[in-house]
Amino acid sequence: MAKKVWQADDNGLHPLVEDYTVGSDYITDLQLLEFDIEASKAHSKMLLAQKILTKEEFEHLNIALEKLTVLVQEGSFKIDKSQEDGHTAIEQYLTDECGEAGKKIHTGRSRNDQSLVMIRLFSKKILLEIEKDIKQLVKAYEVAIKQFGKEPMPGYTHMQKAMPTTIATWLGAYKDGFSDVANYLPSTLDYINQNPLGSASGFGITNFANQRDLTTNELGFEKTQENPIYCGISRGLFENVVLQSLSPAMVLAGKFANDMLLFTTSEFGFVSLPSQYTTGSSIMPQKRNYDVFEIMRGNSKLYHTLQLQIQDIILGFGTGYQRDLQLTKKSFIDAINLCKQTIILLSELVANLQFNEDRLRSAMTDDLFVTNKVYDLVNDGMSFREAYKIVKKKYFDNIRGY
Amino acid sequence: MAKKVWQADDNGLHPLVEDYTVGSDYITDLQLLEFDIEASKAHSKMLLAQKILTKEEFEHLNIALEKLTVLVQEGSFKIDKSQEDGHTAIEQYLTDECGEAGKKIHTGRSRNDQSLVMIRLFSKKILLEIEKDIKQLVKAYEVAIKQFGKEPMPGYTHMQKAMPTTIATWLGAYKDGFSDVANYLPSTLDYINQNPLGSASGFGITNFANQRDLTTNELGFEKTQENPIYCGISRGLFENVVLQSLSPAMVLAGKFANDMLLFTTSEFGFVSLPSQYTTGSSIMPQKRNYDVFEIMRGNSKLYHTLQLQIQDIILGFGTGYQRDLQLTKKSFIDAINLCKQTIILLSELVANLQFNEDRLRSAMTDDLFVTNKVYDLVNDGMSFREAYKIVKKKYFDNIRGY
Amino acid sequence: MAKKVWQADDNGLHPLVEDYTVGSDYITDLQLLEFDIEASKAHSKMLLAQKILTKEEFEHLNIALEKLTVLVQEGSFKIDKSQEDGHTAIEQYLTDECGEAGKKIHTGRSRNDQSLVMIRLFSKKILLEIEKDIKQLVKAYEVAIKQFGKEPMPGYTHMQKAMPTTIATWLGAYKDGFSDVANYLPSTLDYINQNPLGSASGFGITNFANQRDLTTNELGFEKTQENPIYCGISRGLFENVVLQSLSPAMVLAGKFANDMLLFTTSEFGFVSLPSQYTTGSSIMPQKRNYDVFEIMRGNSKLYHTLQLQIQDIILGFGTGYQRDLQLTKKSFIDAINLCKQTIILLSELVANLQFNEDRLRSAMTDDLFVTNKVYDLVNDGMSFREAYKIVKKKYFDNIRGY
Amino acid sequence: MAKKVWQADDNGLHPLVEDYTVGSDYITDLQLLEFDIEASKAHSKMLLAQKILTKEEFEHLNIALEKLTVLVQEGSFKIDKSQEDGHTAIEQYLTDECGEAGKKIHTGRSRNDQSLVMIRLFSKKILLEIEKDIKQLVKAYEVAIKQFGKEPMPGYTHMQKAMPTTIATWLGAYKDGFSDVANYLPSTLDYINQNPLGSASGFGITNFANQRDLTTNELGFEKTQENPIYCGISRGLFENVVLQSLSPAMVLAGKFANDMLLFTTSEFGFVSLPSQYTTGSSIMPQKRNYDVFEIMRGNSKLYHTLQLQIQDIILGFGTGYQRDLQLTKKSFIDAINLCKQTIILLSELVANLQFNEDRLRSAMTDDLFVTNKVYDLVNDGMSFREAYKIVKKKYFDNIRGY
Repeated sequence: MAKKVWQADDNGLHPLVEDYTVGSDYITDLQLLEFDIEASKAHSKMLLAQKILTKEEFEHLNIALEKLTVLVQEGSFKIDKSQEDGHTAIEQYLTDECGEAGKKIHTGRSRNDQSLVMIRLFSKKILLEIEKDIKQLVKAYEVAIKQFGKEPMPGYTHMQKAMPTTIATWLGAYKDGFSDVANYLPSTLDYINQNPLGSASGFGITNFANQRDLTTNELGFEKTQENPIYCGISRGLFENVVLQSLSPAMVLAGKFANDMLLFTTSEFGFVSLPSQYTTGSSIMPQKRNYDVFEIMRGNSKLYHTLQLQIQDIILGFGTGYQRDLQLTKKSFIDAINLCKQTIILLSELVANLQFNEDRLRSAMTDDLFVTNKVYDLVNDGMSFREAYKIVKKKYFDNIRGY
Repeated sequence: MAKKVWQADDNGLHPLVEDYTVGSDYITDLQLLEFDIEASKAHSKMLLAQKILTKEEFEHLNIALEKLTVLVQEGSFKIDKSQEDGHTAIEQYLTDECGEAGKKIHTGRSRNDQSLVMIRLFSKKILLEIEKDIKQLVKAYEVAIKQFGKEPMPGYTHMQKAMPTTIATWLGAYKDGFSDVANYLPSTLDYINQNPLGSASGFGITNFANQRDLTTNELGFEKTQENPIYCGISRGLFENVVLQSLSPAMVLAGKFANDMLLFTTSEFGFVSLPSQYTTGSSIMPQKRNYDVFEIMRGNSKLYHTLQLQIQDIILGFGTGYQRDLQLTKKSFIDAINLCKQTIILLSELVANLQFNEDRLRSAMTDDLFVTNKVYDLVNDGMSFREAYKIVKKKYFDNIRGY
Repeated sequence: MAKKVWQADDNGLHPLVEDYTVGSDYITDLQLLEFDIEASKAHSKMLLAQKILTKEEFEHLNIALEKLTVLVQEGSFKIDKSQEDGHTAIEQYLTDECGEAGKKIHTGRSRNDQSLVMIRLFSKKILLEIEKDIKQLVKAYEVAIKQFGKEPMPGYTHMQKAMPTTIATWLGAYKDGFSDVANYLPSTLDYINQNPLGSASGFGITNFANQRDLTTNELGFEKTQENPIYCGISRGLFENVVLQSLSPAMVLAGKFANDMLLFTTSEFGFVSLPSQYTTGSSIMPQKRNYDVFEIMRGNSKLYHTLQLQIQDIILGFGTGYQRDLQLTKKSFIDAINLCKQTIILLSELVANLQFNEDRLRSAMTDDLFVTNKVYDLVNDGMSFREAYKIVKKKYFDNIRGY
Repeated sequence: MAKKVWQADDNGLHPLVEDYTVGSDYITDLQLLEFDIEASKAHSKMLLAQKILTKEEFEHLNIALEKLTVLVQEGSFKIDKSQEDGHTAIEQYLTDECGEAGKKIHTGRSRNDQSLVMIRLFSKKILLEIEKDIKQLVKAYEVAIKQFGKEPMPGYTHMQKAMPTTIATWLGAYKDGFSDVANYLPSTLDYINQNPLGSASGFGITNFANQRDLTTNELGFEKTQENPIYCGISRGLFENVVLQSLSPAMVLAGKFANDMLLFTTSEFGFVSLPSQYTTGSSIMPQKRNYDVFEIMRGNSKLYHTLQLQIQDIILGFGTGYQRDLQLTKKSFIDAINLCKQTIILLSELVANLQFNEDRLRSAMTDDLFVTNKVYDLVNDGMSFREAYKIVKKKYFDNIRGY
């Protein structure tokens, strides 16, 4: 069993406590190691400038960090449960590889600010990536609109036919919605673009000259997050801000999934997908199911409960690191993965929509045009409410007449 | 019983259904009537330009809308449950006051886009107001920092003393946090600054020349939300965006409340409030309770469940208005009220903080400075991890020595 | 402004703090006053047995409590915001009516255990009522099954036609589901059937002989909740238990609403309701909308967020009363009201279902019977998986043949 | 790539769709395979009775199922992602092992009812296990009470000292709370003790004589869940019922964690745990942290969001299997694991509580006894409210006198 970095003596931690507190953190951290390594490089540069590291030690550490990067990319680096997290795993790797220099890497930082900076770098990268993914999706809608847009379709309110509309208007609503989300993300990036590295365990280090601006520049942050307690508070809070700014994208995906599940029923039959996007049943040979939209509907809900997990946990106490913050990491990663996967998949699905013109046209029944009749009377000078009453009476008289 | 606008014949609605579907909407709408009136004025101007209204009718309607505004402000205007909502109440008021002109006011709009535009106008106003309230709160923190900032205090992690810090750093964390929220709000305002009026029931009106840009200018929107289905989708979704952008403020308030509840215990005793901010007990005469922070802690959680209510409901279906959207209105208003009230109250409380210097100073015990001893060794050239082990061993040997 | 019971001197509470901490509690309590009065009667009997009250004082108090009951039932008793809650309002009413005897009523109790016992009595009553309401609903399903049950209808999975079923099976699923909920409620009643009165502020009263079993008998509780700290912990926790046991009823209602919203579309058209249960549109004269099921779908979600509000708040701290517990009262009452209203309304709606036999029969298309063909082969001795493959191939060959 | 059971031809599923729809289901199912096997055995017995299987085929299948059980227990059986789930993996394993007999095993059942019965069997087992675990925990509290119970401690309300209490009362509250949960679980077991196997894809199988009572007896269910649509509806709904009945245990654990985090601060210092239950800091050598209770606090919240995930998903549609139900499986398993782990760990922690008598006694300050003074006056005949006012005035006069 590897020793934890805070274990100076040989008293082990009770295995029930270890299992419970470490949880799956040692697995989650694997997805974030690259950002921990990136921050470790910048941090070692600061330690060099501070003369804590010699030039030689610095270079040695950087070679080891490069080697580690390769191991991580290959998937051959594992974090041991007894190491608790990736931060400890990196320090122990560096100590194994570089000896004394490895024992210096933790100078001026804590696992707290390592987590903070690692998640912050991940968040920045993912915001840019998802912005691009969403713009791709907007394009997929544009292409579909160009191809099918002119086709008329019924507009529904309360699940009932309401007024005439077109494929262009229906798909265009999602195009505009996703477009607005993409436009909002840069302001979220601005919000979180602050370097927490050097805040140590949340109170800075008073008798050590931590050159925080050096790592700020090195890591490409807009500014240093000066107040170390604010750095600490922003754990979870900034993740919440990121997830919230992506929430409208998940809402739109969920709503589109709901639309598709209705419009692909045999009763509506407006739209379909090629068979490689649909699934079958283990006992009903005839089935073509749109499971993919059912899972999308479910995931759009899961996304918001993951967000809630973060909100619930960070509201459980005030300032100062407490261990349940660790649980927010998994919620955050899971939510980001759900979002990214959903957007990319949706682009693929939108690009393969097939419309059934016959069904659409036969669905354009008279009742959709009743409001038009009201406006014919309005355009002839009648007040709207009078025209409405007259048309309504006539409509229901006719129905009763059948 | 007043007639609903959609009731052309005399078939009443079953009272159980009426109660259940109207809910408390007729009360909630009272808080939003002023924005419905504002939009109705702009809409009537459009109808004038469209020659649906004569100059005389237009003026008549505007006088009635002014009169209605006064009634609303006085609190003497009531919405009858059987009217369902404020939109119907306004139309019936205008019909009573202006006859034929009143029956024309609904031309080119639906209750759907009336709701949308009313809530949008309210959201815009409230975002600006709360931005100002938060900036006020930031100032309150600044003043407190100026007055008490230099005082040392223990920094806690895991509820245990960790490292030395100061009042300035502690309060400064909240100052920076709230400041970042205020800076984010303008981008949220940009997001929602789109006029939905004229989207009618969510599909526009094909044979009526709705001059949407006219009301966009009149109401001070940045642009027209062109796609009518997107207007419909944005119901609830935009409210969610607004609430989310304010969520960090509620998180910070909740965290500050948690801090205060700990630091005002007799065991900590760092800070207190004058007696007019504390409450007593009905059976324990000696009590001075900080209920106000307990309620703040609770409200910071309620806020997020209200947000969840909106998310849950809008994810329940796809495009096209469905009636449960109505339920999001109360969740939204309640959440906004909680937020506004919390921020304003917090300014008042922060301005009245009293610090107990004696308790703070006697809390600055030796264990807070143990990490400094590590850094003394680091500054003398020892590796961090070695220094840590040496200091740790010495510390626990001493404790065992007691 | 009335004085709070804990105000011995004339220092008022800051109005912002009063507004924020009292919230709407003084309104919510109006619905619970009858149970507070009931408990006050039992409590005064205990004080008589204890000789704290003379026989005369006791009778005087009981006459006043009877008078108060009438005022409450008439709706003419109001709680002033400055009284904070109904407990104070009752004590002040009794003091005004009975003088010295009124000042004795609070002996041996606190507002904490008054709240506890009041909510407990309400919970017990409501559990019995809703159990009866659910049994009524089960009967409504039974009647509908008797009337329409034999009618065939398509069974759907993944929104697609799957296998044949009947109205009896469809409605029977809800009948069985609600029946199981009703059968579960007595065990919930057992759980909470414990008297908290006399636990005072959560620690009992050491130098006062509180005869708790007397009020236990008087109020019809199964037993005394002996441990006063457990009494305190059960605030919110028992409300959670009650709401959870009713949660399956709200899930079933939500699911039935979803079914109805699909089956009442013009595309499905299996079932409808008379016009007094449907609503119209303010601009589309032809609409018949099933808003009632949209609101039911929304309410089934709101119910669960109200439950979550209670869970979130009670998890915010450990033992000992804290003020945010007060916020759980409104969540609880709102959820109970939603549930009761939903069940009663649903009985009415189920009793009025109308089925469209033509649409149902024409919906029984061949694809529903494909699995039967597999079983024909199975019954002839073929393995299931082989039979499945053969039937599937044939089915899709035929479709391609079109 | 293995073929899915519903794939009759060679059209593959698009990899993005496969990844998205399968999710982590093929991993989650590993924990449930034993119950799927158990149900498969019972099902094969039914097929034997039905003469679908020969005696020889039946025995062959049972040997294979035994072999599979061993592989699962050894951890050497893996489900391939392309198999989607454990149901398919089992069928393919049996087909590989037993040829024709394997192809018959799916007769009369669907993956839907396989999931249902597998989760139902798991739920039954886990309810019994956790009931035992909770009773163990109740005993741990009893032992601690016996050992430390007489020690006085301050009772707190609003985080402030309120009235005197004892360790016995404090720990006893949790003992009683957990005891009530254990007593509630049998009624939950009754609720769900219904066999869904044979409901097939949710509509039964009309031309096949499914002997459902045979598997009911074989698997030890109380009764057959007759209505196949109700079987389908109960997916997620019964999981919700199970989780809800355990929710009070998680609330109590969360509340105890909150208590412990307060009482282990150096400022309170009432209680501690041996060092093997506490953790350290990577930079602050002096720290002894109660992370274990922070994680417990966090997990008590996560538990309730997992419950919410199930509630949200099942409320998304009506009757008939839809694929997002699959997502509820992971939420359920995760929540059950959290609960079980928490209860077992808590027993260990309670058994190791150490109380600091000196700190407890010095905490029993005069203010705790002020209410007693009120009752001294009450016992002398004064009205409670008068006595309260007098004692209160005196108390605050004294404080001001300092």
